[in-house]
Amino acid sequence: MAPSNWRTYLVTQESLSSGRSTVEIVREAIDGGIDAVQLREKDTDTRWRYELGLELRELTAAAGVDLIVNDRVDVATAIDADGVHVGQSDLPVAIARDLLGPDAIVGCSTSTVEQAERAEADGADYLGVGTIYGTTSKDDAVEKDGVGPKRVAEIADAVSIPIVGIGGVTADNAGPVAEAGAAGVAVISEITTATDPSRATARLAAAVESGKSPESGEPTNE
Amino acid sequence: MAPSNWRTYLVTQESLSSGRSTVEIVREAIDGGIDAVQLREKDTDTRWRYELGLELRELTAAAGVDLIVNDRVDVATAIDADGVHVGQSDLPVAIARDLLGPDAIVGCSTSTVEQAERAEADGADYLGVGTIYGTTSKDDAVEKDGVGPKRVAEIADAVSIPIVGIGGVTADNAGPVAEAGAAGVAVISEITTATDPSRATARLAAAVESGKSPESGEPTNE
Repeated sequence: MAPSNWRTYLVTQESLSSGRSTVEIVREAIDGGIDAVQLREKDTDTRWRYELGLELRELTAAAGVDLIVNDRVDVATAIDADGVHVGQSDLPVAIARDLLGPDAIVGCSTSTVEQAERAEADGADYLGVGTIYGTTSKDDAVEKDGVGPKRVAEIADAVSIPIVGIGGVTADNAGPVAEAGAAGVAVISEITTATDPSRATARLAAAVESGKSPESGEPTNE
Repeated sequence: MAPSNWRTYLVTQESLSSGRSTVEIVREAIDGGIDAVQLREKDTDTRWRYELGLELRELTAAAGVDLIVNDRVDVATAIDADGVHVGQSDLPVAIARDLLGPDAIVGCSTSTVEQAERAEADGADYLGVGTIYGTTSKDDAVEKDGVGPKRVAEIADAVSIPIVGIGGVTADNAGPVAEAGAAGVAVISEITTATDPSRATARLAAAVESGKSPESGEPTNE
């Protein structure tokens, strides 16, 4: 699936999954219609992430869901992921692209128009834009207070690659992010801490859809 | 240079370099005759290590010194390093070998004969054996009290790939490690915290040489 078709994007973190395994959360998110999964799992060792990645690859491939690896191009290659997601402190987009080749998906975290334009020029396929509303689960969030849907609109205006809004996004506030021009939204805790991760995924997708066509769906919060 | 010819091996850690940069330490170690440098720099971000790696590649290539990257196969490829060093919690040796190809150097940290035999079977070119004497600078050291030169001898007996002893090694205690069958020794603080890193490197090399031929050199400590 092309990133432009992603509505919902789960970033995994077993330590924030209310005692459940990431495999269990991903399985439920797939049931709820997740479009992309990013293997992140900050502060865990490489071997553990590699082995988890092999499991997630099996699950996501069977479901036609894209699997992206945070930061590690080598792990992405080793588990045959669809691509990699790099932040401003990871390998440069151009290097990730060189290592992975033209067919892989390369995404980049950006919080400003300047970073977004640079990432697009360097060969990124999509942008993770945020922190939208501020968040506590992403330790390296650039702006704690959130850049808001307004920044999504500014970046969408400046680049032609799809945007995934991230940071503090929930089913209740995803609509304005999509309305501002994001293809979809990425979340950790909205799905990983949900009592019913499958339902949380479906609700998030519905919120994105209604944000894209506010006249035909549920009313958005703005 | 083949790992069997390594006498001294510097593992970098700028945070343990007494306020000096890793580039400065490596430059001095090269002056002192270092044989191999491992870019490690635990707890720093990928971009920083990548950029440092580009600098170290330039310095080491000009001096004919091997450059190895800890854990990250992708960074090793991106900076054109000679190889990678993986621990028991990193990517498996066989995967690193697959990703890097047959010509790259792949090393593996081992503390037992079983791990050593497995690493050799999986395609490792050399082993980092330790912790020899215990150390405080390697947070993930497997055995705090040290396995001693005796374990080096046991592993040297079990495998045919070269061994580098690591963990608590200094010029004063390197001799017995070489005498036990190690090709060389790896250090962090013995070089990075030395007032004169160049001289520290040369002293370490002399200690290894005297351990290899105890009858012809300085007396060892045992």
